[in-house]
Amino acid sequence: MLSKSQIGFIKSLHQKKYRKEHKIFIIEGIKSILEFISSNYQVHSIYYLAQFEPLLPQMPANIKLFEVNNAELEKISTQQAPQGVLALVNTPEARKIEPAVLRNKFSIVLDGVQDPGNLGTIIRTADWFGFENIICSLSTVEVYNPKTVQATMGSLSRVNVFYQELPDFFEQVNLPVFGAMLNGTSLYEVNWGKEGLIVLGNEGQGVTEEVIKKITLPVTIPRVGTAESLNVAISAAILCADISRNLQK
Amino acid sequence: MLSKSQIGFIKSLHQKKYRKEHKIFIIEGIKSILEFISSNYQVHSIYYLAQFEPLLPQMPANIKLFEVNNAELEKISTQQAPQGVLALVNTPEARKIEPAVLRNKFSIVLDGVQDPGNLGTIIRTADWFGFENIICSLSTVEVYNPKTVQATMGSLSRVNVFYQELPDFFEQVNLPVFGAMLNGTSLYEVNWGKEGLIVLGNEGQGVTEEVIKKITLPVTIPRVGTAESLNVAISAAILCADISRNLQK
Repeated sequence: MLSKSQIGFIKSLHQKKYRKEHKIFIIEGIKSILEFISSNYQVHSIYYLAQFEPLLPQMPANIKLFEVNNAELEKISTQQAPQGVLALVNTPEARKIEPAVLRNKFSIVLDGVQDPGNLGTIIRTADWFGFENIICSLSTVEVYNPKTVQATMGSLSRVNVFYQELPDFFEQVNLPVFGAMLNGTSLYEVNWGKEGLIVLGNEGQGVTEEVIKKITLPVTIPRVGTAESLNVAISAAILCADISRNLQK
Repeated sequence: MLSKSQIGFIKSLHQKKYRKEHKIFIIEGIKSILEFISSNYQVHSIYYLAQFEPLLPQMPANIKLFEVNNAELEKISTQQAPQGVLALVNTPEARKIEPAVLRNKFSIVLDGVQDPGNLGTIIRTADWFGFENIICSLSTVEVYNPKTVQATMGSLSRVNVFYQELPDFFEQVNLPVFGAMLNGTSLYEVNWGKEGLIVLGNEGQGVTEEVIKKITLPVTIPRVGTAESLNVAISAAILCADISRNLQK
């Protein structure tokens, strides 16, 4: 049984303002929760329907457990069809990425991606292909948005997501910068090499002018048909898949 | 100025039941509407804010035009932030695909995709890569769902989407059937040839048992990292991109 104040607190975390204030975000579903428990994230508390208790592992003592009923879960859940278990997770301290960490690998840079589902899908795809780091412009949607978290399908627990002022960031790292653009070198002719940054822009506007200046090679996914553009998460995936294939040659 | 009954009618089309009953669906945004007008679809009526009137082309006489105010548009729109113009479009008669149409090309087969955004994104991606036809199992989400239509970004006006009983369908066409599976031949080793069907399954359950039996080559996108799976629209895009590259060799 949750108190009114507990329910009010968790519901407040549906909003970015309160996630930021309390440094806590919501994850849902037993699989995601198990992945976060065994990650570097600190799980704060877990709210579960009775029938999900057997699925919960032995918990560290600092994770608080609350059995809830359906009505309570519906109130605190961010989803139309709650998944039976919900957890609160502490947001890690915002970190700056160390340029040295990005050597000898590929990382994704997002310049103003706005749709939370797109960001989440990009994180999930990065996790599949072993891209460890995603660097987001300050204009990119918040990674702790429930729709983002949901779309990552647990991959948020494994992929590092940084928020940085982008033009500054490119000054600090000295790596090839590939940009997904509508006019550039054909994907089929790109020599990726062994390290670099892959820049993807906003859903409507693409990459900002100031970031375009930092791109060393604009890359285009050749179009055969008539669509005006590709979804940004789709473009990211096609580039990641090509890089991954190239690295395994 | 719309009548109460007009508003009620358009609002009813937010629901699948009434889209089916009236054989009409909603599209939004001037770009999509222009694309549908110049397609084989029959646009039924257009509802626009005054400032969008200059963007509307000379209309065929059978398309009814209604100027609306913001309050009216908010009522009839399916979107949180309406785009200024909304149109009703007649759903074409359900057709069966002719097997001969699928020769010498690749087509996408969806076996139970449930998320409307995923279906829409797959349609948009198909349009980019020039895949003309998508065949959906009867269990696949409705293509006229507003979220699907929105995610296609106008590509629905160009890609043919069919709904058919799937096992029957495979009996009728005699083509290689590639299936996106977690265990199969590496994408990097597939010889696509010049024609075939690409099967993608439900977001949670994958491809159904009865459809698995029809797959001649299961294909796997090699995983480097730790994610358990890829989003279905992402998998579709990576396969389409690879086939497209191969066809252009």
